[in-house]
Amino acid sequence: MKCKVCRQPAVIEVRRHNAGFCQGCFLAHCRNQVERAIKDHGMIGPGERVLVAVSGGKDSLALWDLLLQLGYEVDGVYIGLGIQGYSDPSAEFARGFSAEHGAKLLEVDLPDDFGFDVRSGAAADHRVPCSACGLSKRHIFDRAALEGSYDVLATGHNLDDEAAVLLGNVLRWDLAYMARQRPVLPAGDGFPRKVKPLVRLGERETAAYCVLQGIEYQVEECPMATGNRHLGYKDALNAIEERSPGTKAAFYSGFLDRAAALVAEVGEQSREGLHPCPGCGAPTTATELCAFCRLVDRAAEQKRRRLSLNR
Amino acid sequence: MKCKVCRQPAVIEVRRHNAGFCQGCFLAHCRNQVERAIKDHGMIGPGERVLVAVSGGKDSLALWDLLLQLGYEVDGVYIGLGIQGYSDPSAEFARGFSAEHGAKLLEVDLPDDFGFDVRSGAAADHRVPCSACGLSKRHIFDRAALEGSYDVLATGHNLDDEAAVLLGNVLRWDLAYMARQRPVLPAGDGFPRKVKPLVRLGERETAAYCVLQGIEYQVEECPMATGNRHLGYKDALNAIEERSPGTKAAFYSGFLDRAAALVAEVGEQSREGLHPCPGCGAPTTATELCAFCRLVDRAAEQKRRRLSLNR
Repeated sequence: MKCKVCRQPAVIEVRRHNAGFCQGCFLAHCRNQVERAIKDHGMIGPGERVLVAVSGGKDSLALWDLLLQLGYEVDGVYIGLGIQGYSDPSAEFARGFSAEHGAKLLEVDLPDDFGFDVRSGAAADHRVPCSACGLSKRHIFDRAALEGSYDVLATGHNLDDEAAVLLGNVLRWDLAYMARQRPVLPAGDGFPRKVKPLVRLGERETAAYCVLQGIEYQVEECPMATGNRHLGYKDALNAIEERSPGTKAAFYSGFLDRAAALVAEVGEQSREGLHPCPGCGAPTTATELCAFCRLVDRAAEQKRRRLSLNR
Repeated sequence: MKCKVCRQPAVIEVRRHNAGFCQGCFLAHCRNQVERAIKDHGMIGPGERVLVAVSGGKDSLALWDLLLQLGYEVDGVYIGLGIQGYSDPSAEFARGFSAEHGAKLLEVDLPDDFGFDVRSGAAADHRVPCSACGLSKRHIFDRAALEGSYDVLATGHNLDDEAAVLLGNVLRWDLAYMARQRPVLPAGDGFPRKVKPLVRLGERETAAYCVLQGIEYQVEECPMATGNRHLGYKDALNAIEERSPGTKAAFYSGFLDRAAALVAEVGEQSREGLHPCPGCGAPTTATELCAFCRLVDRAAEQKRRRLSLNR
């Protein structure tokens, strides 16, 4: 197979585009896709300061690299989740990238700064681990972007992620979640602007980008996520994509083009009734503390109980 | 496991309902589900004459039986599709049910009455076989219902079918198809009323209904359908259902409850511009002959060419 662009031997095939690419043209293809996503959806304006949510995995490090390549001013923020055997090496990949590129990395540590890890927080708050983790990450990333006065918070959600989340939302016809599933959520109501510049790249592409660009990343999947529903939706879409390449991209872009407007009104309603949490100031619809503050409180309460039992 | 209703030993488990049933209570469960679908969606009024589209498979024969059990006046219509090794035995199951229940069966034969079978029609019209088959069945079933002055045409689409079709429509965000995917399509514009009374039963249930009710049916899948997209969507949904029983039912009923209204307007538009086909009188938006008449013409043209080549 030859590179679609320069006719040199290809090193990767992207079936969805029915195209092969050599190393240089593939890296350019990834930059082009990110540039196009940013432009099409008005994600980042010229001169704006960007904060990238960094996990140490392929997507967030590829995103950080691509945004730097495209000339943006980009810092990273890493959250230590206290997941044994997984969080420490993940942090090392984030720090390694930061050091190598002379890019600033903010760090927050769930156990040190909030007194719990994903496992204990989930147990104390009667959530599955992925729910406690997602809640914590959304809260902390949003705060970091606002407190650092960044113009925009960028996350590494790729096409596979977005298609799988959309499938889950559609299987439940959760119209409020569908309405919020956009590549750009504007700032306001106490939230920073949030953007997903990788929505035009699949996870095979972000992994290949890292390999071909020489970026070292956490290859392991999170051990807490094994068997979760999201991965089930990914498997289902992968099986369909295998028979009909392009299905995922058509599903996601068709949603944005034709269906998002139909559910948009429901999304407007879902931001109604927001007010600052009396605990942390983050926007919430809860009558007292926000969900993250409740998680912190319950994890602390659980810890106290455990300590008093051991006394 | 015990029967949820009478506590006798269960013969079947329905995971979606988290329930087991004995033979008698399962048959009653199926009748109840069909009765509820008919009532909830206003499918069939008292005293109305029903025509069931019969393939000889589990769904259509279970439907015919269930509607008779519920006291409706129901004839069947069978289409011989000319599929070698498959159509003849299918017809025998349809005729067997008809004879055993003293119920009238209309028969139409694609090769005898229209001069082509699914394979040759598909080739002549440059369609995949399932497309030529579906087009022919919709056309002929609609005609049979109107010409026989039936009040309603009932088809054996079950929950698995509807969920898989919905998934396909959603993956393409084909809003016009989504708008028409309702359990009842009202009569008008040259179409009979069309209803799907099995939408509350999965295909495992319709198969079990036939077995427990002693109905003999065509067990083989259509050999022309192997590997088609629809079966791929079914596989994907089955994998998700296996992890989360009830997903398919929630997907389909959630669509009807929350999303169908959002796309309904698109459906209204799709019936605009219909006029009678100059060939057969069936409603069409085509400028000249309807798609079925074109299929018939192309199949005939192809046959003439083949005959002249062989001369």
